[in-house]
Amino acid sequence: MARGGESVLTRAVRILAAFGSGDTSLRVSDIAARADLHPATASRMVAELVEHGLLTRDGDRRVRIGLRLWELASRASPAVSLREAVMPFLEDLHAVVGQHVQVGVRDGTEVLFVERLSAPGAVINYTRIAGRLPLHASSSGQVLLAHAPHEVREQVLAGPLTRYTPNTITDPDRLRATLAAIRRQGYAYCPGHIHSDALGVAVPVSDGRQPAVATLSAIVPNDGNGRAVIPVLLTTARGITRALRSNH
Amino acid sequence: MARGGESVLTRAVRILAAFGSGDTSLRVSDIAARADLHPATASRMVAELVEHGLLTRDGDRRVRIGLRLWELASRASPAVSLREAVMPFLEDLHAVVGQHVQVGVRDGTEVLFVERLSAPGAVINYTRIAGRLPLHASSSGQVLLAHAPHEVREQVLAGPLTRYTPNTITDPDRLRATLAAIRRQGYAYCPGHIHSDALGVAVPVSDGRQPAVATLSAIVPNDGNGRAVIPVLLTTARGITRALRSNH
Repeated sequence: MARGGESVLTRAVRILAAFGSGDTSLRVSDIAARADLHPATASRMVAELVEHGLLTRDGDRRVRIGLRLWELASRASPAVSLREAVMPFLEDLHAVVGQHVQVGVRDGTEVLFVERLSAPGAVINYTRIAGRLPLHASSSGQVLLAHAPHEVREQVLAGPLTRYTPNTITDPDRLRATLAAIRRQGYAYCPGHIHSDALGVAVPVSDGRQPAVATLSAIVPNDGNGRAVIPVLLTTARGITRALRSNH
Repeated sequence: MARGGESVLTRAVRILAAFGSGDTSLRVSDIAARADLHPATASRMVAELVEHGLLTRDGDRRVRIGLRLWELASRASPAVSLREAVMPFLEDLHAVVGQHVQVGVRDGTEVLFVERLSAPGAVINYTRIAGRLPLHASSSGQVLLAHAPHEVREQVLAGPLTRYTPNTITDPDRLRATLAAIRRQGYAYCPGHIHSDALGVAVPVSDGRQPAVATLSAIVPNDGNGRAVIPVLLTTARGITRALRSNH
């Protein structure tokens, strides 16, 4: 019974995880293939998830993430509470900086982006809401890694450190020195680390107790003028800290 | 096995549903009570959900909604895609109207709010992100009900129609006439229907195929000056339709 139970939940999670960013609908056969389940099992599990509203069927024999799942996940989510506290500041920042501004939190050895505002025609950016990037490569990730517990930092430094561009930091010693500089300076500056056309600049967001419960970043063109966003990011992060502190 | 499976998923959903709006953390004993589960069962299920990252434990023997659940629900969610398309328009609307502006979709006989922007000190508003209201009472709900399938409309008209204030429409004939007027005029106007201090004004948002895939609304003070928001809501809804149409 315990094993049967465990396996139902595991399979349910595998089915939900089959939906990638932007896959708003999938066929049951695609779900079965991606979740590595027998088609009959996938079909039965999908039916069960539909019954609970966690998935819905659309007209075309395709399946979508259900509103009920989004509601259950969002209603009491720390990610959504953070987003709500951050949003007015992010709007002001976006009005001034344009381009992309975003907020991320650390989940394991990755940064998970909980909010992003983008201008039409802004520079290329690989971030999506509810998307992830590894900690060593992006400005957001480096800020979170600089303030992560010792074990997490050592785990990431032990590699592998994936290269995205010639500018990505893939040498552990250089990464260690960069993280120390971020703790000293208060920001991460990553010109062309993920894409050569884009500059990422990120600062930590404190809740008044921990130094980096989240990170605030801007992705701007990598044209040599990007340092101008550092003061406005630092100022905005202080405003967010004040708002988070008053929520305690 | 099928019954055991069904019951695991049912219990998991009951545990997730125990978290209400703003309950960012709960004790396992509270979860057991709210989900109507034996404490030992709740404790075992919570452990399993934590193992999958759908819940997390914080320092204080309390449990939270996990980032992984939020990520799975958000990554491919139609609610989030709608939000992303709507957001730039909602920001502009919020900059002009101030107060509360929000976007909702119909789920069964309720409106589920997928986004809200609020100004500090704005008029009272019962909406929360991922919160719900019944279709007959709010301006958002009336717009969605006016354009809902015949069966849904009849089901709501059959009652009960809960009264929130003396202005709430609780008479089925009056509600039917109001819905016809909304289809004709293109907006719902609800002074004091949910709270006597607040006026809700809502318009349908079309995706270019269906007349009301969502509703856009403003909650402003019920002071007799609220009609001014109707043109800006209608204009903004047209902009959103253009953006949604280009996504097809």
